[in-house]
Amino acid sequence: MITGSASGIGAATAALLRERDAIVIGCDLDNAEIQADLSTPAGRQSLIEQVRGPIDAVLAVAGGGKTGLLETNYFGAVATLAGLRPLLAQSPAPRAVAVSSTASLAPADERIVQACLDGDEAAAVAGLAADPAAGGVTGGYGIAKRALNRWVRRVAPTREWAGSGIALNVVAPGVVDTPAAAYILTDPEIRAAVEAAAPQPFGGFPGRPEWVADLICWLSSADNRFVTGQIVFADGGSEVSALGDHHWR
Amino acid sequence: MITGSASGIGAATAALLRERDAIVIGCDLDNAEIQADLSTPAGRQSLIEQVRGPIDAVLAVAGGGKTGLLETNYFGAVATLAGLRPLLAQSPAPRAVAVSSTASLAPADERIVQACLDGDEAAAVAGLAADPAAGGVTGGYGIAKRALNRWVRRVAPTREWAGSGIALNVVAPGVVDTPAAAYILTDPEIRAAVEAAAPQPFGGFPGRPEWVADLICWLSSADNRFVTGQIVFADGGSEVSALGDHHWR
Repeated sequence: MITGSASGIGAATAALLRERDAIVIGCDLDNAEIQADLSTPAGRQSLIEQVRGPIDAVLAVAGGGKTGLLETNYFGAVATLAGLRPLLAQSPAPRAVAVSSTASLAPADERIVQACLDGDEAAAVAGLAADPAAGGVTGGYGIAKRALNRWVRRVAPTREWAGSGIALNVVAPGVVDTPAAAYILTDPEIRAAVEAAAPQPFGGFPGRPEWVADLICWLSSADNRFVTGQIVFADGGSEVSALGDHHWR
Repeated sequence: MITGSASGIGAATAALLRERDAIVIGCDLDNAEIQADLSTPAGRQSLIEQVRGPIDAVLAVAGGGKTGLLETNYFGAVATLAGLRPLLAQSPAPRAVAVSSTASLAPADERIVQACLDGDEAAAVAGLAADPAAGGVTGGYGIAKRALNRWVRRVAPTREWAGSGIALNVVAPGVVDTPAAAYILTDPEIRAAVEAAAPQPFGGFPGRPEWVADLICWLSSADNRFVTGQIVFADGGSEVSALGDHHWR
């Protein structure tokens, strides 16, 4: 089960899984087995109701966009993971992955992050609307991804997840050539500024969606028998370039 | 090319790679293609001289032990990675992995860590000898692994590594059933204390060497096209249990 399956990293992941003979149930606004809008509570509910279990992996990839940043990237992702967890728990080797971003490293208004973690969507959305600069250069996108990282770190070691045999990890991509990054990549000035600010010395800039898909697939496979609660940056080295040696934890 | 190939995680990794039809050159004190003692400068030099390139992956697994903790776990690992880097750079898809430990999270005497990073083996070893308590409960082992994490974080994004197309990552295992952990696992009291202090809710306690080998193999495979400079804990969730949601970076 994968959200955001119609484009970008979600589409690349769905393609790779199908190559490996997995049965993939995709969810997206269009062009997917399940059509649902994860920016709304009704859309999230619709997704949960349409999936039948058991399922071996839940991949919360849907996100990006320039609107509904907190709604899709945080509340949609958490609803997907938490809502499908009972079906996942029926699998003999259940795994889940949330897709975050290197934008999660940007300074962010911790009050809005906290409102997300509290599950208070109205307060989080109102807080961002009241102060559009609260998320710094990455806007509400970075806030949502930061909150998503923290949510995964909170729940991964609990009885419901690790204690039930379910691995839950985050893949945090750098700049990847996807529709969600088009606003960066199609403007030569923005593109050059982002590339200079976040060098990706391994693999290149921008990354390819399938490079990220490879890691998502490994973490969500039965080969992952001991890794949970990790935030793994698939970003060509931009995180380590930015944070250096002291910040590996 | 893998060091520590005769037992534990190294042996499990070598076995998995051979199953996948890789040509494995193992190094260990005995029972290996190359016999060398990485706790000494002469042994490290001997390893480097005996390997012929190109090689697709260098896996610095050798370590553990109750003596020569800094010598093998830090200086031996760094000598392996740095010394074989030129042969690695001849591969079309070069990858390297250093094996660390959750012991790297323990408080450690930063002066000894710094002596390691400065390449001053005499000062590091003398500092630990002068104060055997400097490494806290994990002793010199934790210091060595902490320094190894930091060395990888420093060099991974540089021209010599990422800039040359070489991915370099750390796998940090939790408690795994290996000869190096026998002193923990064979004493019921120590075993119970370690299990209580570092719960591994996903996979179980102790972990199996092959669970860690799976991650080492993925990070060192050509499928890894975008991940470098990462410290990935393969520890059943003990790191996330200990550090919680604020410490994911």
